Amino acid sequence: MPRYKILIEYDGTGYAGWQRQANAISIQECIEESIESFSQEKVTLFSAGRTDTGVHAVGQVAHFDLKKEHGAYTVTGALNHFLKTKGIVILETEIVDENFHARFSAKKRFYKYIILNRSAPPALDLNKVWHVKEPLNVDVMRLASGYLIGNHDFTSFRASECQAASPVKTIDEIEILLDEDYIVTYISAPSFLHHMVRNIIGTLKMVGCGKWQPEDVKTALEAKDRAAAGQTAPACGLYFLKVQYE
Amino acid sequence: MPRYKILIEYDGTGYAGWQRQANAISIQECIEESIESFSQEKVTLFSAGRTDTGVHAVGQVAHFDLKKEHGAYTVTGALNHFLKTKGIVILETEIVDENFHARFSAKKRFYKYIILNRSAPPALDLNKVWHVKEPLNVDVMRLASGYLIGNHDFTSFRASECQAASPVKTIDEIEILLDEDYIVTYISAPSFLHHMVRNIIGTLKMVGCGKWQPEDVKTALEAKDRAAAGQTAPACGLYFLKVQYE
Repeated sequence: MPRYKILIEYDGTGYAGWQRQANAISIQECIEESIESFSQEKVTLFSAGRTDTGVHAVGQVAHFDLKKEHGAYTVTGALNHFLKTKGIVILETEIVDENFHARFSAKKRFYKYIILNRSAPPALDLNKVWHVKEPLNVDVMRLASGYLIGNHDFTSFRASECQAASPVKTIDEIEILLDEDYIVTYISAPSFLHHMVRNIIGTLKMVGCGKWQPEDVKTALEAKDRAAAGQTAPACGLYFLKVQYE
Repeated sequence: MPRYKILIEYDGTGYAGWQRQANAISIQECIEESIESFSQEKVTLFSAGRTDTGVHAVGQVAHFDLKKEHGAYTVTGALNHFLKTKGIVILETEIVDENFHARFSAKKRFYKYIILNRSAPPALDLNKVWHVKEPLNVDVMRLASGYLIGNHDFTSFRASECQAASPVKTIDEIEILLDEDYIVTYISAPSFLHHMVRNIIGTLKMVGCGKWQPEDVKTALEAKDRAAAGQTAPACGLYFLKVQYE
């Protein structure tokens, strides 16, 4: 039974996130339906990351099995035909070994978060950035981010609904770039807790606007208490960027 | 009578361009109405460039006069209040000398054009880029663009409806950047003919995909015939970037 790995870009606006839900439309459901329309086979999709409502993806990865073998190029074209106008696009399809699992074979996940830092709201980037009016100091945000890199107990940055077995995670990198009014944060780790990236961004924003000192992030981390860290940054600024497999 | 200069960002999707029309909604009309809602005065807006249907702006400039004097910050906030959800945002307001004219005082105009060059259609950038499937060679596009820089008769790159007195224009700069699948062209000149940027991009694309040699752009320019140059690139990839005043 051939296994198909797909690389996906989506605009999360208007979707109830990746995961299939009873009463709301999800990315997973749309893609599963397009696979069914194309192949006449019912499938379950497994993804590298279950993005939340309103979160976007530049390079989400998922896999599914079909009884019949199709060419990779045919699958991409057929799915994009059925996904047309849905804000979901298959960038690439690959036929992979049956040992490949989009979620469990992933070695590293990369996210990007975009803040639009200016007084005026976004026109071109509506639903694609977090609009922060107060001027943010990127230098102190960078200093603060240093406390989060490495292996830590991230309880303070974990949503209460998080189902992970352990709050201990390893952040490999946080890079914060400034491009005119855009503050773009790149963050990578083997895996993340629920809301972890958004809680980190909300906390770095407290430092950027001067309400917190960079060292307060260290204190928040050590408190192992969600209430000790900053707010959860809005979903619309978050992009699931890519996944690295062995 | 105080004159107000406004800096504007807009998403041109769904608008019949800048200029007020009888049977379609324009950017000009929306902003004029928001000024009227705020000030109770009827005004006419003059802009640095009359963008076409579907063209976006990052830094359009316009001016208008009001009998009453308001603070610049108040004007920005009030207009953005009335423009909310319209995809139009006032970035800044300045009270200027009555000799200032958004169109006639402009010394240089800057545009940017974005091509998404990949097989899959855009999900995140729907209506914001020109999707070109055939692989484009940016190096030869850069070579070709060199023939267009400087003072030339741009009849071959001018729309038949163009109302400019002369087809002679001076292009100061064309810069083509490649960022993953995005080919972004920056182009500046004191002023442009109607459709000039889009006709240039459509022509450079012919070179990029290998159907034309770079020198064919020189031949097209010298022909002084619209039929000699390439197609008009779609409006949705074009952004009015900024205006330089003395």
